[in-house]
Order: sequence, then structure tokens, then C-alpha cells
Amino acid sequence: MHTIEQMKHHVSVRNYQKKAIPVEIKQELLLAAQSGSTSNFVQAYSIIEIGDQAKKRQLAEITKFSGHLNQAPLVYVFVADLYRHAAQLEKHHRDLAPLTNTESFVVSIVDATIAAQNMCVAAESLGLGICYIGGIRNDLFKVKELLNLPKLTVPLFALSIGYPNEKNDPKPRLPLNNLVSMDSYKIDEITNLANYDEQTSQYYQNRNSHQANITWTEKDLDFFSEVRRPEFARFLKEQGFDL
Amino acid sequence: MHTIEQMKHHVSVRNYQKKAIPVEIKQELLLAAQSGSTSNFVQAYSIIEIGDQAKKRQLAEITKFSGHLNQAPLVYVFVADLYRHAAQLEKHHRDLAPLTNTESFVVSIVDATIAAQNMCVAAESLGLGICYIGGIRNDLFKVKELLNLPKLTVPLFALSIGYPNEKNDPKPRLPLNNLVSMDSYKIDEITNLANYDEQTSQYYQNRNSHQANITWTEKDLDFFSEVRRPEFARFLKEQGFDL
Repeated sequence: MHTIEQMKHHVSVRNYQKKAIPVEIKQELLLAAQSGSTSNFVQAYSIIEIGDQAKKRQLAEITKFSGHLNQAPLVYVFVADLYRHAAQLEKHHRDLAPLTNTESFVVSIVDATIAAQNMCVAAESLGLGICYIGGIRNDLFKVKELLNLPKLTVPLFALSIGYPNEKNDPKPRLPLNNLVSMDSYKIDEITNLANYDEQTSQYYQNRNSHQANITWTEKDLDFFSEVRRPEFARFLKEQGFDL
Repeated sequence: MHTIEQMKHHVSVRNYQKKAIPVEIKQELLLAAQSGSTSNFVQAYSIIEIGDQAKKRQLAEITKFSGHLNQAPLVYVFVADLYRHAAQLEKHHRDLAPLTNTESFVVSIVDATIAAQNMCVAAESLGLGICYIGGIRNDLFKVKELLNLPKLTVPLFALSIGYPNEKNDPKPRLPLNNLVSMDSYKIDEITNLANYDEQTSQYYQNRNSHQANITWTEKDLDFFSEVRRPEFARFLKEQGFDL
């Protein structure tokens, strides 16, 4: 149960020691990432390491977590990537339409995320901390320019990795009866969040820092009170997708 | 390095022993799944266990892997799920637009996949085998009906889990220089697959079963020779998304 116990203690880490990650460890993290499942073995993703300090700073500005991204010893950007396939298809004078539709887009997101999550679990098994940074989607066009991304690629998230300075307590997840159902989607069970709101209210009131009198539902209503990243659809169109 | 070594030996398993998985193990797999990262703590996914044999058979027909899905002792369907949030927003008379756009759709796919991959690594740490089954997307409308899925949900993939009867050798992944680049996307390096094609040709010629004289690029050209699952976009529209 060692691996599962480790997973249950997962928290995002945004405060890292100033300690570089050895090349051999980076290599292992990359091999772990790519050993996960991939839809029909298409491996529809790429990984870009951000080593250049100026680029780290520019990315940090986009994500609005500047302190965090700037100080992370290791930053990878995960790219949903169908360009590799496009290059092969074009070399053989084939039609690109099979790459540009919703199905292929979803495959590339799933492939990239499987790889990233493998990297996270691998990193945590070595005592490292990680944080997903979806904030790079705040300005997809700028990230594209910064990383020289070709068509049919989408910068999905960054992953920061380093030795933790401090770790929070894990947040209480949805009770299993609000998450899992048997044989069909049970609307009443999934959406009756009264117990969870009670539980999260206790958590937010009593945690070590950033205490607040709020429930999960209240946080959620606030989060979804405005349309986020509305230029995503236009970005995908400019990248050659036709969803 | 134990966890990483386990990951490097990952292969999909489609042939399981007729041995049930104890309730306590299922519980641990679910807790592992939901302990992964989730975008802004929104937890935008659900999990449906398929216990009913008739439903398993119907799903198997859709996926065209009937033998495999029918015989798996444990089958979960992972659902990208923004309905839980819609129910909360509606209860409080809020606008649903923030849930229906591309950004929220992507968040729900990433959240569901992080959870699924945690479950896979957890299962393999206990000696179980797993297989992702994207084939449930062959008929999204039928799966929706079968599982009684509400609006703003998408059945993403199934996961079959069981004790392996046999395991293949891991397939050789992309060489790291075709996958990873530093500071920007290196088009020439990413797309020069000559070495990989040589390597995969050797692999397919020499593996234990289903030997073939083929390269990764040839397989890939074949796979992307036609548009797959073209009704995905229409399904998303009918589910209430506005990408």
C-alpha cells in the first residue's frame, strides 16, 4: 500500500528549496512520464523544459504566480501535440482532417495528462513536490510565441517540481457517494453536497493558513461566476483545429 | 526508485484471471484516484462502476473489444463532469456559460484523466493490470443513454482492471529527443523519426505475438487515414457545450 499511501498525502507544493534536481533524476521523471498508457500508441504530446530564466519569468507573468514559477528548480510545459503526426502525414501527402477534429484533440489532452500525472507520482515517490499550473492558458497566444509552438499543438499546463520547503495538509475530497455511482449516473447522490459543504467548511476554518469561513459550493459558485479564458476557442481555430 | 521501475514496466492488460477484486481494494483505488491534483479544486469528473453484466456486454459491443470488457472483473467509466457544478449554479440562479466553454471542457478532461492515471498506478502497485478503453467513444449517444448521463457530462474512457493472466513486453516509447525539447519546440528534432522507426520496426518483428513488418510511422499513417468518431462535436453540442 506504499504507493497508495503516498498518493493520499499528495498536496500541491508552491514553495521549493533552492536545490537543483540532478540530471539523472530528470531523466527518470521523463521516462516515467512516457511509460504511461497512450491512445492507440499515438503518443500525442510533447514536453518542453523551461531552463531559460527570462522565459520562466515571462511564463510566470502569464500565470500570475510569478514568485512560484520563478523559484521552481524544474519547470516542464506539457503540450497536447498532433504536429508530429501532421509532419508525417504531410510528408506522405495525406489529408490532415483526421488530426483536427474533436476526437483527436481529446486524445492529445488525455495522452499529455497521463504522462504528466505519471511524472507527478514519480516525482513524489522521490520526495519531490509538484504543482500543476493551468495558468499558462491565461494567454495561449503569448505562450505559443514564447515556445515557438507549431500548428496542432496546445500548451496545456506547466508542471513545477522541486524539493518542498513546506507542505500543507491534503484537502478533503468529495465523499465517494458524491463521486462514484453504480451502473448509471445517480443525479441525486452526485449533487447532494450538504455533507461535503459541512466538511469543507470545517477544513477551511481550521487549516494552518488562509483560514476562511466558506464551503466548497461557495468557492465553486465564485470560481464559475465568470467565463474563463474565452479566447481558447479562437486559439484552437488558429492552431488548425476544427472542433 | 521502486514506483518508477513499476511505471517503466507498464503494459495494457486485456486478459484477466477470473478473480474478483475485494471491496477494500476497490475503495483504495477510488481514494487514490481522487487524491490527485484537480484544477482549482473543482473535481470536474465522476466515476461509474459497471457491475451489471448486461450493461458490460452492451458497453463491450460499443467498444468492439467484447471478450475483454466482458471478462474484466472490474470496469469503471470515467466521466468528464460539469453537471455537479451546473446543479449548484442552477440552484443559485446563476448563468451556466462559465461551464460550457472550451476552457471548462478541457479542465474536466484533465481532471478525469489525472484521477484515472492515479488509479492505474495504484492498481499496478497492487499487482493488478489495467487497460484504458477509449472505444466507449465509438457511440457516445448510446453510452449516454446506457449510463443515464445528464447534460455537461462526457463519457471519456473506461478502465478495465483485474489480475493479469499474461503480460506483454512494454513497447518502446519515442526517444527522448523526439519528445522533449529545451525552452522552445524544436520542430526538426521532434519530427525526425528515422531512428524510432528503425527501433519500432525491430520491436514489431521480434515481439512474442502479432509480429509484423511495420514501423511506428506506418502504423500512425494508417491510424490517421480516416476521420475518427466524427459525431463527437455534435454530441458535445447536445450535451450543452458551446466550444
